[in-house]
Amino acid sequence: MLMTQIFLEDLSVGQRFSSGSLTVSEADIIAYARQFDPQPFHTDPDAAKDTFFGGLAASGWHTASLTMKLLVGSELNIAGGLIGAGGELAWPRPTRPGDTLRLAMEVLAVKPSKSRPERGMVTVRCETLNQNNEAVQVFTVNMVVLRRNPAP
Amino acid sequence: MLMTQIFLEDLSVGQRFSSGSLTVSEADIIAYARQFDPQPFHTDPDAAKDTFFGGLAASGWHTASLTMKLLVGSELNIAGGLIGAGGELAWPRPTRPGDTLRLAMEVLAVKPSKSRPERGMVTVRCETLNQNNEAVQVFTVNMVVLRRNPAP
Repeated sequence: MLMTQIFLEDLSVGQRFSSGSLTVSEADIIAYARQFDPQPFHTDPDAAKDTFFGGLAASGWHTASLTMKLLVGSELNIAGGLIGAGGELAWPRPTRPGDTLRLAMEVLAVKPSKSRPERGMVTVRCETLNQNNEAVQVFTVNMVVLRRNPAP
Repeated sequence: MLMTQIFLEDLSVGQRFSSGSLTVSEADIIAYARQFDPQPFHTDPDAAKDTFFGGLAASGWHTASLTMKLLVGSELNIAGGLIGAGGELAWPRPTRPGDTLRLAMEVLAVKPSKSRPERGMVTVRCETLNQNNEAVQVFTVNMVVLRRNPAP
């Protein structure tokens, strides 16, 4: 993996980055949900059968948290850290017990700041894919990225 | 708090809902970050001083997870559970150690499904406010909501 630190000048539209992978267990799904999203379709495999999801499903926020875990340590090694300002989030389908997740990222926009010469804003489409290459999350995120050389 | 179950027919644009509150400790921030977002500004109070955040800050995904915790048990007691399809997410400022968070929600749109007579989509602006009434997160979420009486 590319481990050199990435600055604003290193990024351009169309660049792609990937991540390692991780596998989510039923116990992981239930542990997260008990702490942050205690609804039966996230905490109880039996009760989940008769719900919208038709079986145990990870909280969307658990999928988002795991996506962040994959981002830290991914090829997108932004100098000074990964700092998101927000973005558009979608969960096309849930993460299920046993799913193996990985990221596929693409740079959509690179905008130097007009008021802050030492930084800019970068838009990245970050897809979280399961083992069938189906997206469980699509996050189009706006990130603060430092310049290597501040603008004059 | 209003604990009756809410169906699509009960919702209309402009309705407001609130939640209880919770206080976030430094230990909570570090524990979440070690698991899901292990970057120094989220895990190390000393190292965080020299970063973008100027001190320990909760991961945005921790703020999102705590927001979900407040939503479950809030006045927005949707029948069948809170099921988000996605939305627009922003973190105007970070959650800090000792912050007390609560939610302020407003219904922005209510749209019965044309293809699925038993449900609809509801858009809710969900602001997560700290003890100074400053937004640490604004999530404009699209949620799947069941109808009490399926459309003919």
